[in-house]
Amino acid sequence: MKVSQLFTKTTKNVPADEVSKNARLLIQAGYIHKEMAGVYDYLPLGLTVLNNIIQVIREEMNAIGGQELSLSSLQPKDLWEKTGRWDDELVDIWFKTRMHSGEGAHQGPELGLAWSHEEALTALMRNHIRSYKDLPVYAYQFQTKFRNELRSKSGIMRCREFIMKDMYSFSRSQEDHDVFYEQAKQAYIKIFERVGLGDITYVTFASGGLFSKFSHEFQTITDVGEDTVYVHEGKKIAINKEVYTDEVLADLGVTKDELVEKRAVEVGNIFSLGSRFSDSLDLKFTDADGTEKTVIMGCYGIGPGRVMGTIVEHFADDKGIVWPENIAPYKVYLVRLGESEAVLAEADGLYEDLTKAGALVLYDDRSDARAGEKFADADLLGIPYRVVVSEKTLVNKQFEVKKRTEQEVHMCDRDAVIKMVV
Amino acid sequence: MKVSQLFTKTTKNVPADEVSKNARLLIQAGYIHKEMAGVYDYLPLGLTVLNNIIQVIREEMNAIGGQELSLSSLQPKDLWEKTGRWDDELVDIWFKTRMHSGEGAHQGPELGLAWSHEEALTALMRNHIRSYKDLPVYAYQFQTKFRNELRSKSGIMRCREFIMKDMYSFSRSQEDHDVFYEQAKQAYIKIFERVGLGDITYVTFASGGLFSKFSHEFQTITDVGEDTVYVHEGKKIAINKEVYTDEVLADLGVTKDELVEKRAVEVGNIFSLGSRFSDSLDLKFTDADGTEKTVIMGCYGIGPGRVMGTIVEHFADDKGIVWPENIAPYKVYLVRLGESEAVLAEADGLYEDLTKAGALVLYDDRSDARAGEKFADADLLGIPYRVVVSEKTLVNKQFEVKKRTEQEVHMCDRDAVIKMVV
Repeated sequence: MKVSQLFTKTTKNVPADEVSKNARLLIQAGYIHKEMAGVYDYLPLGLTVLNNIIQVIREEMNAIGGQELSLSSLQPKDLWEKTGRWDDELVDIWFKTRMHSGEGAHQGPELGLAWSHEEALTALMRNHIRSYKDLPVYAYQFQTKFRNELRSKSGIMRCREFIMKDMYSFSRSQEDHDVFYEQAKQAYIKIFERVGLGDITYVTFASGGLFSKFSHEFQTITDVGEDTVYVHEGKKIAINKEVYTDEVLADLGVTKDELVEKRAVEVGNIFSLGSRFSDSLDLKFTDADGTEKTVIMGCYGIGPGRVMGTIVEHFADDKGIVWPENIAPYKVYLVRLGESEAVLAEADGLYEDLTKAGALVLYDDRSDARAGEKFADADLLGIPYRVVVSEKTLVNKQFEVKKRTEQEVHMCDRDAVIKMVV
Repeated sequence: MKVSQLFTKTTKNVPADEVSKNARLLIQAGYIHKEMAGVYDYLPLGLTVLNNIIQVIREEMNAIGGQELSLSSLQPKDLWEKTGRWDDELVDIWFKTRMHSGEGAHQGPELGLAWSHEEALTALMRNHIRSYKDLPVYAYQFQTKFRNELRSKSGIMRCREFIMKDMYSFSRSQEDHDVFYEQAKQAYIKIFERVGLGDITYVTFASGGLFSKFSHEFQTITDVGEDTVYVHEGKKIAINKEVYTDEVLADLGVTKDELVEKRAVEVGNIFSLGSRFSDSLDLKFTDADGTEKTVIMGCYGIGPGRVMGTIVEHFADDKGIVWPENIAPYKVYLVRLGESEAVLAEADGLYEDLTKAGALVLYDDRSDARAGEKFADADLLGIPYRVVVSEKTLVNKQFEVKKRTEQEVHMCDRDAVIKMVV
């Protein structure tokens, strides 16, 4: 892609009410647009990063047997009344709306906008799960969630509308569930490693609800996190403040003096649901011995947008965003300095060669931007490699290469550049 | 994918209130689930078909310079008031909701759920379009639209919630717009050819609004269509009933006796917007001569779900769905008949070989399904090729191959099967 053709522009104008670093940088770089507090549009570069994260998650969900589907946002009231989750007194994040009726606009039945999908998927599975032979089922989606948050000041890390990956497991027994739950946990660890957050993300013990002692959160250490966790560096685990009790510490075989209090953001969670939803919605199966049993469920969530925001918060420096290579929208930011025929030919040629070799290149071919602007944009956008072509680099038939995370520049010939970035 | 692992089951139970052929067949085959009238979930096979259609559209949008983004569903009232499209008296398909406020649930500002995105994108472009050098811009998305339809009885062809591809063009002048509008029209023709509807889809003249004499619809001939069009077979065009006047006929150089009245469904449309939205939302640019001008816009829509429903309606026979090869969820339905070691080895081996050769295979490896069930499912699911492995086919080391659209079966050896389906 040529910068002259990319419609987004970098800007210094960020909405005055935007306080979060992640949204400020992403708006400046033209990755997102703020529609209102907690509601953002993803522009081409931002959508590419989001899709790169989604693809990593998809691959790991497929690797543990996940089957992808897509459930609706509009949800009928009666379904959620069956599980007791319709009432605004109990669930305070609903957006609700109404169908049309013959009497006029907004006079028909009440509908909810899904903030989760346990009800919809559990009800649907009654058509597909009848026998133990139909189990297990692991189904997941990347689907918009609507959550009517009272406050939303963390940029794309806590939104009123956002894409979520939610997987739900349906198992024959608690034992089968426990095995899959552990597989899901390992898949999550891989996901956070692949997107670059492995080092600072901890499997965190949190409250488990009715059906298990703990749930597990994946907490990434960051000063802007809304959660407090106690980290055990040696065991690479953490404990959420909500279950930070002497009893839990004893359970986990750790002591207070081994733990360090940190701020963290919950980038994922996995939860054993037991028969909470299958009981309410009557999802049963006939086991091998002919008896009728209740399906055992689990749920497994990750918000790709929150992961993206966390990555910005963690890696950014005073010059802008720094993307890990795996999820960057482009691998190379190719800067052309000068307008001579020789420079044009050399830069165009390298763009072509890199593209042919399979590297994703954002080519700053602008004639009306100064060198300083181009370098500033390269840094702000956070592309892993910056390659410069200029009269100066032409002299020795070389190119100037700099990694976004390093200060030094390297002079390389064409083959070396290609080798470095492909 | 093995059928024994696919969680969806085919069924004879279709909701009693489902009258449309497309939804009845897609529910029977386990492609979709009905959440409520006009609201459907896409199950794994259905999501794959939908994504195949989306990918065809994406490729053609990129080929004419489109840049993909994703705009929010939640929309602020004040933005739509500026264009006069907030009022329920004027736009009768809004779903509306409210934010939380300190006073409690659903007491805060009113929000709309986007049924289109002209307002959001035009407002956003003010940050990116200032000079003639920033034009043209072609931006598109695949995003959920919410439309509060009073009636919704056409299955996935008219939904209250559905994915739409909407592209918007921003041009420097009417002349530039006209050139791109024609490119978009050609791209649409290619899309409908690629998904298998080319023969029965007509560029259709429809009312154009304030800024052009006509808009263009892409109308696919089908008995369940909600529109009436007049088809000119020789010119491969049609005229929507709404503009079927002597004046228009004279304009287009056709006479009544050359036209045939047909029922059709609008699978796409392209529309010149002129300065309708750029005026209301103040999207201007400075031209080369220093004068300030209004950006000229167009919009270009296709509903991939409606395309999918139309394909089902058109190609299905009394045995089930028939997918065109380009968008089928799998290319081959591999049926194993019998449980002998020889049959198992042969079927497993062919599954592996076909998969390695790049064919997408749905392998009916079920031990507890009879031959009749397997054949019925192969037909119902509409997979283009059915390949059978049985004791009988083993005798000559061959396989039985049948196309979904043909009656005859062919006996082929392994290489011939692979050559046929890859």
